[in-house]
Amino acid sequence: MMMNIPLTLSAMVEHAEKYFAKKEIVSRTATGITRLTYGESCKRIRRLGNALTKLGMKQGDRIGTFAWNHHRHLEAYFGIPGMGGVLHTINIRLSPDHISYIINHAKDRALLIDAELLPLIENVKDELTTVEAFIIMTDEDELPETSLKNVYHYEQLLKEADDRFELLTNIDENAPAGMCYTSATTGNPKGVTYTHRAIVLHCMALGLVDGGAISESDVAMPVVPMFHVNAWGIPFAALWFGTKQVLPGPMMTPAVLAELIEKEKVTITAGVPTIWIALLKELETGKYDTSSLRAVLCGGSAAPKGMIKAFEIKHRIPFIHAYGMTETSPLVTLSRLKSYQTDLEDEDRLDVRSKQGYVVPGVDMKVVGPNGEVKWDGKEMGELLLRGNWIADEYFEDERTDEAFRDGWLHTGDVVTVDEEGCIKIVDRTKDLIKSGGEWISSVDLENALMTHDGVFEASVVAIPHDEWQERPIACVVLKDEAKDSVTKEELLDFLKPQFAKWWLPDDLLFMDQIPKTSVGKFLKRALRDQVRELMKTTS
Amino acid sequence: MMMNIPLTLSAMVEHAEKYFAKKEIVSRTATGITRLTYGESCKRIRRLGNALTKLGMKQGDRIGTFAWNHHRHLEAYFGIPGMGGVLHTINIRLSPDHISYIINHAKDRALLIDAELLPLIENVKDELTTVEAFIIMTDEDELPETSLKNVYHYEQLLKEADDRFELLTNIDENAPAGMCYTSATTGNPKGVTYTHRAIVLHCMALGLVDGGAISESDVAMPVVPMFHVNAWGIPFAALWFGTKQVLPGPMMTPAVLAELIEKEKVTITAGVPTIWIALLKELETGKYDTSSLRAVLCGGSAAPKGMIKAFEIKHRIPFIHAYGMTETSPLVTLSRLKSYQTDLEDEDRLDVRSKQGYVVPGVDMKVVGPNGEVKWDGKEMGELLLRGNWIADEYFEDERTDEAFRDGWLHTGDVVTVDEEGCIKIVDRTKDLIKSGGEWISSVDLENALMTHDGVFEASVVAIPHDEWQERPIACVVLKDEAKDSVTKEELLDFLKPQFAKWWLPDDLLFMDQIPKTSVGKFLKRALRDQVRELMKTTS
Repeated sequence: MMMNIPLTLSAMVEHAEKYFAKKEIVSRTATGITRLTYGESCKRIRRLGNALTKLGMKQGDRIGTFAWNHHRHLEAYFGIPGMGGVLHTINIRLSPDHISYIINHAKDRALLIDAELLPLIENVKDELTTVEAFIIMTDEDELPETSLKNVYHYEQLLKEADDRFELLTNIDENAPAGMCYTSATTGNPKGVTYTHRAIVLHCMALGLVDGGAISESDVAMPVVPMFHVNAWGIPFAALWFGTKQVLPGPMMTPAVLAELIEKEKVTITAGVPTIWIALLKELETGKYDTSSLRAVLCGGSAAPKGMIKAFEIKHRIPFIHAYGMTETSPLVTLSRLKSYQTDLEDEDRLDVRSKQGYVVPGVDMKVVGPNGEVKWDGKEMGELLLRGNWIADEYFEDERTDEAFRDGWLHTGDVVTVDEEGCIKIVDRTKDLIKSGGEWISSVDLENALMTHDGVFEASVVAIPHDEWQERPIACVVLKDEAKDSVTKEELLDFLKPQFAKWWLPDDLLFMDQIPKTSVGKFLKRALRDQVRELMKTTS
Repeated sequence: MMMNIPLTLSAMVEHAEKYFAKKEIVSRTATGITRLTYGESCKRIRRLGNALTKLGMKQGDRIGTFAWNHHRHLEAYFGIPGMGGVLHTINIRLSPDHISYIINHAKDRALLIDAELLPLIENVKDELTTVEAFIIMTDEDELPETSLKNVYHYEQLLKEADDRFELLTNIDENAPAGMCYTSATTGNPKGVTYTHRAIVLHCMALGLVDGGAISESDVAMPVVPMFHVNAWGIPFAALWFGTKQVLPGPMMTPAVLAELIEKEKVTITAGVPTIWIALLKELETGKYDTSSLRAVLCGGSAAPKGMIKAFEIKHRIPFIHAYGMTETSPLVTLSRLKSYQTDLEDEDRLDVRSKQGYVVPGVDMKVVGPNGEVKWDGKEMGELLLRGNWIADEYFEDERTDEAFRDGWLHTGDVVTVDEEGCIKIVDRTKDLIKSGGEWISSVDLENALMTHDGVFEASVVAIPHDEWQERPIACVVLKDEAKDSVTKEELLDFLKPQFAKWWLPDDLLFMDQIPKTSVGKFLKRALRDQVRELMKTTS
């Protein structure tokens, strides 16, 4: 009937070298800017595939990368899967324990390491049980001093390799091509394996006008690290489509990013809200021409509406909210306006932009609350369930698979509402929800309401067990110094009353000096819950 | 690893009804304009699936359509594959013999027929051996008078069916979904079967910024008939992406098209050059506002440069040349400018636009001449070979499969040159090429050169067998009346001399009163070749 050609990363390389050989990769490393054409880059990809093969790497072997965003990391993105290996991008920000755990758990046979990140690997070298070769990526001719054994120089390996090495295209499209571990609330990180098929179809979603809309005429700068869900797949898509890419390297300050946007005429960039808050501040200096930007993609966590407004209204830079996770490759939703919404007033448009958006073609969602699938009314809450060809169906050799993957759906653990357009808005995590009498109460909604009170510095709401209602909400509040003597529990509860249904209101409100937080500043709800339950016991 | 969800047309329907229920389909039928939302249309698709199932149709059964571009035909596009059937779109312009041949060869179990096209089917009814049900699509409440038996009223069937009918999503993505027959030079038409996988991936190519760039914000009007390679896949992609579509129905005059473009704010339309030549003439009246148009896609045969110029320069309507065939779903190449070509002067830009372009992501090409793969110099000629997930690998139950599908490639029979950007330009058909001494001579190039001579009305060049050189070119020329007494053979041969290598020049030049043509006005080279060989015999 029709040909059935495996969807592979190697076919993408062949396409790029044929049609986009002149297009450019701008790579910022420790020593400065390197410029390569795709023609040159694809030859280096072939050399890398050959070098790894000569080192004894085989089909299916996991090969780790421990690196910033730069051209060598891009070569690994294609060179490793191109010789049949599995690109395992390691998050350099993990704890030493987790770094050694995931390298051993993935059974990485080789590691590609940025010279400046070498100490982090040396630090755990005695724990590593499977790594046979450490390949150092550096601009210097000489290898740095190191306590590691079996060390190779990346450029030296490439020099000795063949640039006509044949990349594997005739493989099962369901074979693994990549791998990334995601942090768990408790215990070790969980591994997600990406297949060739998943990555190629995800790239197509990135290239759809209604998806990422990445094209040959773009200049793409992934600020999101290449060790976070493949920099959201952008380096893959950009090479395939011949998109000029700007890889901003280590220690990217807001000024570095703003300069790259101006000088390289970046049209699309992607990263987490903290980056964009910092960039926004830098742009306020008025020193930069960012008129080339046609889209800022923002994901990882919800972007504050004020920031979206600053980009959209003040700087006239389209700011697109995205939702996804390591388990979803990651693109799931984008806050795109539908054609009949383009005439909305600024405020209404910002409302759409501050939701997470609706699913891109190729992803299927279901939102399930305590009473089954929720109404699309923007109010009823449910857990977001996902299905699609770039959604994982398991964690790599991990018994926690059964929690998240059930009945053919990924259970994201994210609680959302859905409006009548199918746009989701994240309102909580399932584990932070308060389940009261068969209904759900959003801890986040109550917290946000409390934090609008003038006297409140911060607030967190958690569940305590309840005999009749299963769970009931308790609010924990840190008052501003100047409010500590004046604001009472009753005043705050009265403040909430007109805003919520009666059964949503917290059963109690505790004043605290501080709320326990994670290293990145998020509320540590688990610890807070334990603390509150202990407190409630002693006071009751 | 990753979920493996079958790529199916039914999943596209589910996406459209969830996210684009409000979007519109504008359908022009014999009695006027019908407007439906995708919400309504998807319910009718489910009803059709149910109705066909109740009529006894089973998975894998071929069901034919014999219809213009309208909403019921669109329903068949999804309703037939949605219940497991194979949508066989029948070209209403075929001869009665070919119509009955393809219905019997496909073993169509049912036919969906436009009431106004009924006579064409009645005409062949005694030849049909497999059809058990004739379903008439009409705006009238009553069935028309007909000599057919087992006749059903489409709307009546839908009325009696269930709009909650579950479309099949859990099937093999490599199962057949559609079918279309293509005319052969000799003998009966050849059938091409489209799989669900092929159609879905082809839709993604249509939605890529660098592909068809069809999106939710577009208004798409396929002028190319829905019985020609699925109207180039546009109705499939438009429904999936929630694109408003305008289906122009029967007897579309240039005025009808221009009015629809203006009134419905069409942004993208697609068809063959003859349509655009006629539309261009209509636009010259200055009566229409066509400012909504962002792309005119043109394929089927090469568009004259003058027409491209009129659209691009005079009317400022981007005119995009496309190449494809029934065997390729059809999108293979598009004449898109690369980012570094956008500053080209008008004439150079037109040069790029008048080539067929380079392959879209997902298609792989190879161009093979007498000495292997050709140089990408815009000069060397070779046959275009194609590979990809939406390229056929056989003709349906047809022994001519082996001619076209060899070594994993579709041999298109089209002779092209490739420039350094990878853009192809069609220069001939392999069967019309002159193969002289192991090298190729393009008959089309010689013809075009001759036709620039003031005295020449038309010219065609064909091969005659040659003992030493295998084949040699002979030119056949029809002179303009006013030139008949003045222009000589020698003058014309001298005219060619400075333009070509010596071995390209025709061995002889024959004056004729007319050149045999096909019903659509193309040179009938086979007949001409026979005629010339006969002539040469008698004169030698």
